[in-house]
Amino acid sequence: MTFFTTKIMVRSLGFDYDKAIQMMTEAGLDALIAVSPENVLYTSGCLIATQKLIRNRLAITVLPKNGEPVFVVCNIEERYARRESWIKDVRAYREHKTNPVDLLADVLKEKGLQGRRLGIDKMYIQAGYYQRLIKQVAGTTFEGSDKLFARMQMVKSPEEIDLLQKAAIATEKSIHAGFETSGEGKTERSIALNIAQNMMKLGVDHIDFLEVYSGKNTLIAQPTAGDKKIKKGDVIKTDIGGVFSGYFSDIARMAVVGEPSDTQKEIYCKIVSIQREVIDNMRPGVRACDLYNLCKKRFHESGLGPLGPHIGHGLGIMLHEEPIIHPFNEEVLKENMVICIEPPYWTSEEGYHIEDLVTIIKDGSRILSNYSDIDEMYVIQ
Amino acid sequence: MTFFTTKIMVRSLGFDYDKAIQMMTEAGLDALIAVSPENVLYTSGCLIATQKLIRNRLAITVLPKNGEPVFVVCNIEERYARRESWIKDVRAYREHKTNPVDLLADVLKEKGLQGRRLGIDKMYIQAGYYQRLIKQVAGTTFEGSDKLFARMQMVKSPEEIDLLQKAAIATEKSIHAGFETSGEGKTERSIALNIAQNMMKLGVDHIDFLEVYSGKNTLIAQPTAGDKKIKKGDVIKTDIGGVFSGYFSDIARMAVVGEPSDTQKEIYCKIVSIQREVIDNMRPGVRACDLYNLCKKRFHESGLGPLGPHIGHGLGIMLHEEPIIHPFNEEVLKENMVICIEPPYWTSEEGYHIEDLVTIIKDGSRILSNYSDIDEMYVIQ
Repeated sequence: MTFFTTKIMVRSLGFDYDKAIQMMTEAGLDALIAVSPENVLYTSGCLIATQKLIRNRLAITVLPKNGEPVFVVCNIEERYARRESWIKDVRAYREHKTNPVDLLADVLKEKGLQGRRLGIDKMYIQAGYYQRLIKQVAGTTFEGSDKLFARMQMVKSPEEIDLLQKAAIATEKSIHAGFETSGEGKTERSIALNIAQNMMKLGVDHIDFLEVYSGKNTLIAQPTAGDKKIKKGDVIKTDIGGVFSGYFSDIARMAVVGEPSDTQKEIYCKIVSIQREVIDNMRPGVRACDLYNLCKKRFHESGLGPLGPHIGHGLGIMLHEEPIIHPFNEEVLKENMVICIEPPYWTSEEGYHIEDLVTIIKDGSRILSNYSDIDEMYVIQ
Repeated sequence: MTFFTTKIMVRSLGFDYDKAIQMMTEAGLDALIAVSPENVLYTSGCLIATQKLIRNRLAITVLPKNGEPVFVVCNIEERYARRESWIKDVRAYREHKTNPVDLLADVLKEKGLQGRRLGIDKMYIQAGYYQRLIKQVAGTTFEGSDKLFARMQMVKSPEEIDLLQKAAIATEKSIHAGFETSGEGKTERSIALNIAQNMMKLGVDHIDFLEVYSGKNTLIAQPTAGDKKIKKGDVIKTDIGGVFSGYFSDIARMAVVGEPSDTQKEIYCKIVSIQREVIDNMRPGVRACDLYNLCKKRFHESGLGPLGPHIGHGLGIMLHEEPIIHPFNEEVLKENMVICIEPPYWTSEEGYHIEDLVTIIKDGSRILSNYSDIDEMYVIQ
């Protein structure tokens, strides 16, 4: 398998304007407005990296049901947007001088969209910007279209599935390499750095989380690996994610320092076996909540404690995409969805976590992250 | 200088509740509610890393003018919040079951804050969450307190200044090391990876941007370094930032491949000389716009083209903090502010960019990023 060579071309590989128009028609909308970094990347095909770092520097796509789309960006990003996006009508505002929402309002008026029914991602746009927008285009109805954008992105194109698999395997390989060069007495942080360096060699653009915890530290969700040294008997829990050419990886793997105890072996095997059973039950037509409930039932039967609030999620341009596999989600699986499955478990002593990437195929599912054998915990000597 | 050893303790080092109460009193507020990742970290002393990655998993601090503060988190983060935050009243919601804003509304009612005048960061909270909140606590006035939070964080504590300096110098050293191991024919990306690896060795928790561009690529703000090979005559423009124990670094340095041309030398020297003059003019009482206007005047006198929308910004828990050094900002410099100064310049052929970290002292300013000599461009052979 080859990895990522050209890093400049960070594009969305899944957007289809015709499908978007169809969704607008069904929802009774005259246009869609995307403001979140993920929805803007997906609809424009252009990654404006500062959207996440400098949040008031908005980038916005306006996608009318009838007429040409517009891409609103800060003038600092204008040249890049013109070069990268398929949207040819790029409008730039000068930061600190023109409020991006004022330029958006001008575009809406020009396109005859004032007074119409428009979809916008209300679960992203800041209340301050939103309040200013509704004043500027009085009489316009804004519907929250977060779920519509999520549904647009749930089913992946073959190029997206290929990229997500490469990202997953690069991450899995990197964790494996981190375990291989590890040993008793090394710090959690040194293992994390080793994993990160491997991810960089394999083409990651941005590492987003790099969790390596051992022993009691596996009980607590912490932001960064620390200077605790790993010691005999410790389980090592990793959860690693980065962005490769615009798409996320998210993989969890476990190891143990020295031979695992019978209890550790038993719990680990139960978790893997339940995770595999959930994956075996993934196919078009099954609901997200069905998978959660199956997992919950098996946890109970296996004498494992209460289950966390979700056991998986879609993966793509965003880390937690729909469908989230939680007990209240009736979203139905469809062919070419790409979903992480990660049932979490904690004893009073330590945490257990494995996470794999799965795609839904015509009559079942296929594991995309199948680089290493996870039937037994990796043993660090 | 020693670097970062313990990575678990990511704390805010600047928050002072008494000062917050004084600011609430002056603003006529009965409580402050923080929702943005930066304001939550600053006020709670606890880094909830998923706030940025899984944006609908809100973490919120409620800081009443009278009474005990409350920290609202997802139950996945509960143990960590209890261990790390000085706020002892931690309330957890179960994700996908309880909306975080509903729990927030319950807390406000319990604290007698419904119907009062409350400050909230409206330039962060999502419009969808905000609309739900105002319905749940009808009769309450919510003021946008983004500027109040920004003013709270502008003046740094000695510990914060120390940390920001260490982060700046670690970053500067890493860029230098990247230049040192570089050479004609290397790709932009390989230089970027080398810089990143050095930052990791020096204790970075998270690399947020890693811009390394050469030649014509320096004209365009791109998200990632690519596979262009550097060649004789190219200028190399870097702009690198990461988070060290919760605080940002942001440093730009330049190099040239082979001997610089007279034009390259001349432009570079002008930029450095203007940047240094701006820094020399930083002292308590000077306004942000005064610095911008001085820079603009010198650009004009030196025959350099139009200036970008800003020439610098505060740095701390957030990348672009107040004061932003732009022409409309009348914010006055105060002792112990920490500010990046980075006048940008583009010819038709290439871009120029240097960025240093400066702190305001009693009667002037002091450059914190003074590891390397930047009077001349670094020459890569």
